[in-house]
Amino acid sequence: MKVLLPALLSLTLALSAPGRADEGMWLLNAPPRERIKLDYGFELTDAWLERVMRAAVRFNNGGSGSFVSPEGLVITNHHIGADALQKLSTPQRDLVQQGYLARTRAEELPCADLELNVLLEIEDVTERVEAAVKPGTPSDQAAEARSAAMTALEKESADRTGLRSDIVTLYQGGAYHLYRFKKYTDVRLVMAPEQAIAFFGGDAHNFEYPRYNFDVCFFRVYENGKPAATPDFLPFNQAGPQAGELVFVVGNPGRTNRLDTVERLEHLRDLTLPYRLARVRHAEANLLQYAQLGPEQARQAQGELYSVANARKAYAGQFQGLLNDNIMSAKRAAQKSLQERFQRQLPEANLAFQEIARSQKALAAFEREYSLFEQANAFDSELFSIARHLVRLAAERRLPGHQRLREYRDTALESLELTLFSPAPIEPDLEKVRLADSLTFAAEVLGGDDPTLRKALGPLSPELRAAELVAGTRLVEVAERRRLAGLDADSLAREKDAMIRLALAVDGPSRALRKRMETEVEEPERRAYAQIARGMFALEGPTMAPDATFSLRLAYGRVGGYQVGGKEVPWFTTFGEAFQLAAEHQNAAPFQLPVRWLEGKERLNLRTPFDFVSTADTIGGNSGSPVINRAGQLVGINFDRNRYGLVRNFVYTDQQARHIAVHSKAVLEALDRLYGAQALLVELGQKQ
Amino acid sequence: MKVLLPALLSLTLALSAPGRADEGMWLLNAPPRERIKLDYGFELTDAWLERVMRAAVRFNNGGSGSFVSPEGLVITNHHIGADALQKLSTPQRDLVQQGYLARTRAEELPCADLELNVLLEIEDVTERVEAAVKPGTPSDQAAEARSAAMTALEKESADRTGLRSDIVTLYQGGAYHLYRFKKYTDVRLVMAPEQAIAFFGGDAHNFEYPRYNFDVCFFRVYENGKPAATPDFLPFNQAGPQAGELVFVVGNPGRTNRLDTVERLEHLRDLTLPYRLARVRHAEANLLQYAQLGPEQARQAQGELYSVANARKAYAGQFQGLLNDNIMSAKRAAQKSLQERFQRQLPEANLAFQEIARSQKALAAFEREYSLFEQANAFDSELFSIARHLVRLAAERRLPGHQRLREYRDTALESLELTLFSPAPIEPDLEKVRLADSLTFAAEVLGGDDPTLRKALGPLSPELRAAELVAGTRLVEVAERRRLAGLDADSLAREKDAMIRLALAVDGPSRALRKRMETEVEEPERRAYAQIARGMFALEGPTMAPDATFSLRLAYGRVGGYQVGGKEVPWFTTFGEAFQLAAEHQNAAPFQLPVRWLEGKERLNLRTPFDFVSTADTIGGNSGSPVINRAGQLVGINFDRNRYGLVRNFVYTDQQARHIAVHSKAVLEALDRLYGAQALLVELGQKQ
Repeated sequence: MKVLLPALLSLTLALSAPGRADEGMWLLNAPPRERIKLDYGFELTDAWLERVMRAAVRFNNGGSGSFVSPEGLVITNHHIGADALQKLSTPQRDLVQQGYLARTRAEELPCADLELNVLLEIEDVTERVEAAVKPGTPSDQAAEARSAAMTALEKESADRTGLRSDIVTLYQGGAYHLYRFKKYTDVRLVMAPEQAIAFFGGDAHNFEYPRYNFDVCFFRVYENGKPAATPDFLPFNQAGPQAGELVFVVGNPGRTNRLDTVERLEHLRDLTLPYRLARVRHAEANLLQYAQLGPEQARQAQGELYSVANARKAYAGQFQGLLNDNIMSAKRAAQKSLQERFQRQLPEANLAFQEIARSQKALAAFEREYSLFEQANAFDSELFSIARHLVRLAAERRLPGHQRLREYRDTALESLELTLFSPAPIEPDLEKVRLADSLTFAAEVLGGDDPTLRKALGPLSPELRAAELVAGTRLVEVAERRRLAGLDADSLAREKDAMIRLALAVDGPSRALRKRMETEVEEPERRAYAQIARGMFALEGPTMAPDATFSLRLAYGRVGGYQVGGKEVPWFTTFGEAFQLAAEHQNAAPFQLPVRWLEGKERLNLRTPFDFVSTADTIGGNSGSPVINRAGQLVGINFDRNRYGLVRNFVYTDQQARHIAVHSKAVLEALDRLYGAQALLVELGQKQ
Repeated sequence: MKVLLPALLSLTLALSAPGRADEGMWLLNAPPRERIKLDYGFELTDAWLERVMRAAVRFNNGGSGSFVSPEGLVITNHHIGADALQKLSTPQRDLVQQGYLARTRAEELPCADLELNVLLEIEDVTERVEAAVKPGTPSDQAAEARSAAMTALEKESADRTGLRSDIVTLYQGGAYHLYRFKKYTDVRLVMAPEQAIAFFGGDAHNFEYPRYNFDVCFFRVYENGKPAATPDFLPFNQAGPQAGELVFVVGNPGRTNRLDTVERLEHLRDLTLPYRLARVRHAEANLLQYAQLGPEQARQAQGELYSVANARKAYAGQFQGLLNDNIMSAKRAAQKSLQERFQRQLPEANLAFQEIARSQKALAAFEREYSLFEQANAFDSELFSIARHLVRLAAERRLPGHQRLREYRDTALESLELTLFSPAPIEPDLEKVRLADSLTFAAEVLGGDDPTLRKALGPLSPELRAAELVAGTRLVEVAERRRLAGLDADSLAREKDAMIRLALAVDGPSRALRKRMETEVEEPERRAYAQIARGMFALEGPTMAPDATFSLRLAYGRVGGYQVGGKEVPWFTTFGEAFQLAAEHQNAAPFQLPVRWLEGKERLNLRTPFDFVSTADTIGGNSGSPVINRAGQLVGINFDRNRYGLVRNFVYTDQQARHIAVHSKAVLEALDRLYGAQALLVELGQKQ
């Protein structure tokens, strides 16, 4: 394994509850070798780690996967593949609902704008990023200098290696690592099951266990029109995991807050999460109402609907956790104890806590405006997103790379254009209701006289304005986007397109909010957390993984059930139980098995394990992560965690919290007996 | 017609747009005789009005209806009867979904806690209420004095007449009328159709038109175990209305805000409505998720789910209206013009506008806490509602009637006990999720450290606390409620019941919020609006009806369609179109016709008019109102208004806004051909 940073950098922050059993989403360049050896007697070798790292795949739209053949075959979750499935669907052919199987390579369907990344190298650039910011530099200049330094490092790396190069901020600003990826943009759909079995139990069973989900999907990456060679892959293990077995989950956990200070968590609890919950609930209600208009509307809305319902349930679980005083009291006690130790040995480090508390207050004054306008929560629309990119691209292109907004730096443009010029369909009616709803939400949050909102609405109500905007834009057409992308800022400013005009009208206030965020919140926080991290490292040495940042991590744990109210919840479910549950619900949605499953029941071994759980430490973003045994073989595909795992953003426990995975045996049995996917089984090494 | 107030009291407030065509929800003791005569050539006689008043029925739980036979037969909407239907249902027999037909009087099903009121007399008591408050009295004393005076007047009336006696506040405080009702509490279910046809189109078609709803339901009032004699009733008109015909809608519109000042409307737009929308959306999402768990959960949740979804759509329409600057600009211009006229002739009246603006500011400081704790939005639970009544009843009983909280005055106790000791089933699982959700909502609104909320939660998260509360109460049992209602306040305070303890714990802060509301907002507003009303009356005389207050009103209008985007929307729909729409949706919910309709299709005249529209001025609360022709016959049952009517809270227009009613012919045809309700048709005078 080529790891450019040899030393462990893992810092303990006692802000989190004391390190427990299998806690941690570990950096691949700083794995917990000793703990794993001590707890499980397993030696994590460089070779093992390197192969796994190169077999792991990041879905750039927010998920994980892995190579499972030497010919570029990728396995992930159906719910991670769903965005690509939706974009390949038409009113006549709904691949999300119906599934798909390419019988030959020629039938593998190219995906519109899917980008997969494979991590090849990690380099610690902490000192070079920190060196760009002299002590005592005012926040606004510091933020700019740091951003410029990061952009320069990335550009230098990309120019030199030809690899996608992204700096990952760790420990909330305590460290900076440069990740180099191989990038695949020719990705094709190989196989997807029906959503009814991938998401059996629907929202009711989401974040619950026992579960019965065939949440898998296969893609293949191509290079130069041919399947890519991927010699580092995870062979399927036919038997799957056993009770008590050590397993690893390798993937890209999205975001945790275990090292956040108490004041930061209180801010999350009292401001950020309530806002986010309101936003996703608003969008969910709106999409549900749209979906009710008919089957075609339901088809259009299904992807976004899954996504907001999933977010709603995740946020709701986090919120309950933060309202539970048992959790908050433990956090308070841990922070107090750390502060007392700092007070004795490193009193200056305690100033960082005040700084973070101060930045929460600063944030409270404009967080909602920032989310609504700069993060475009007020403009929930593909078309607006395109319009904003076009407007900003024209403006930013005039500047040198390191002075641009980060997403328009040279190294990011290729991925951006993949999205911007994507031929994926955009549904005007859905755009209209999403835009009407999000403008309405903004009015609920800010009142009807907010000047930026009024700029966006003109004299109209949100509903009337949304209709006017969607009728007045041609951004649905890719050719029109390309034409506009060719214009300079002055020419673009003279265009009449309603959505472009909206993006122009709100750009000034939005940029001002972003500047404020960077200067008043992000930069002070980064500096303060870096101070705390250095303090902890000085006191304790490396015992804790950094919080998740949608970058590659290694988690590990033990396969095993748990108790609820004195009753044992078994560590795996079976096909047979899924049929039983469907029968109990008269096979009505969301407990409706696809026809293929109902008709194929006789052919299946009903005792085949379906889904299983382990204690490994995961979070959203880990969806599609391979579950791997000691031999480096794939024994499962992670797809969820149970309700007890919803507080994992803040604390890890292994008492009842579990991640949930599809059992490798279930995949093979279903591919063979139900889907007739013989070529796939051959490629997976399971058939001749 | 016995009208104790002979003089017209109707005041114009030019705050509303200038009186248009058929605008107005008129008092029955101040009907717009001249306008109707002028516009329609119809003479509204005292006899006509008195019969209609005595034939109109108020559903105390929030709706309208009318007598349609001399033997106590009442017609209303299915969605008004639904609460009673739900309470009569069991897991084995879902009357809401399946409907019901009593073949004999013996089969008429007694409803658990349904109270119907029939208005007999109106008396103007403005002077006596105003006399209780001397000019210059501080707000807190004024509020108490006014409340005491109202209670005394009601008690005196009830004692003297034996009738339910309620004072209705009109013109936001400009007038007080005492309404005397005959009260029926032995109400029995006679006939209800299936919800699928009553609410055909579901939420998607709610507040839309064209519509195809058989939204009717029949009850019968009993006295001394026998059908009550109701000589004043509305005979069914078999032909129904004709295009262009003058019709009347008589019922109890719930609430409008046409006379509110601009500052009050801005407060509604920027604070009240966003809060309410968030609350109902929260509850709706929660109930939808509960309903998804299975058919029994769906059955339990259906009533509440309809109610919050309906509120969400109504609030959303109001919100869009207030965000439409065309509406707000008209309101601003009207208010400015009124203020200029006041300035010239009655400059002191202009102070009232400032007073109302001031009271909005005062309200903003505690409105959310008031809604959450005093209005119990944080405790969305039947069991909590019972607990609070028990706790407050014990405390209030110690005081003389006129010093009590208004809902515990002597004249209100009988109706209160009907609810308190209702044998209607309470579902503990549903209670748990509603309570968890509403406590969570409170935490989202107020943050996790709010002292009153923390008192309610203890150290637990909302979900855990809700489970503890429901497990720790015996208030599901009516006998236990009766036992607790017998205790004095001190004994009650020693009870261990978890819900009682919660109600005790939050009672102090809740009462304080109520006091603040009465003193800082309601009383100053009442006085200010009275001043404006008097000013207007002095300037203009009587040209405008008071805002709706869930008291009996007369609206009138013309039967007729309207145009949308240049296309004519016909004034009525037909049975045939409903079958066509169902077929287009593969008869899938919410466009699913009941089996009875599908199988009975051949027997029906498919050209029978189903629903129709008129320009009459209605709002929520008018549901179930009879639509009456000049001859005083029933030609329809109002059940909704279209989307253009959603802004009727603030402005009336007759351009596209319409109320929607079931056509009398549709009722007779369906009862005859589909429901085999021959006895009912005989009673309605349509068969021998």
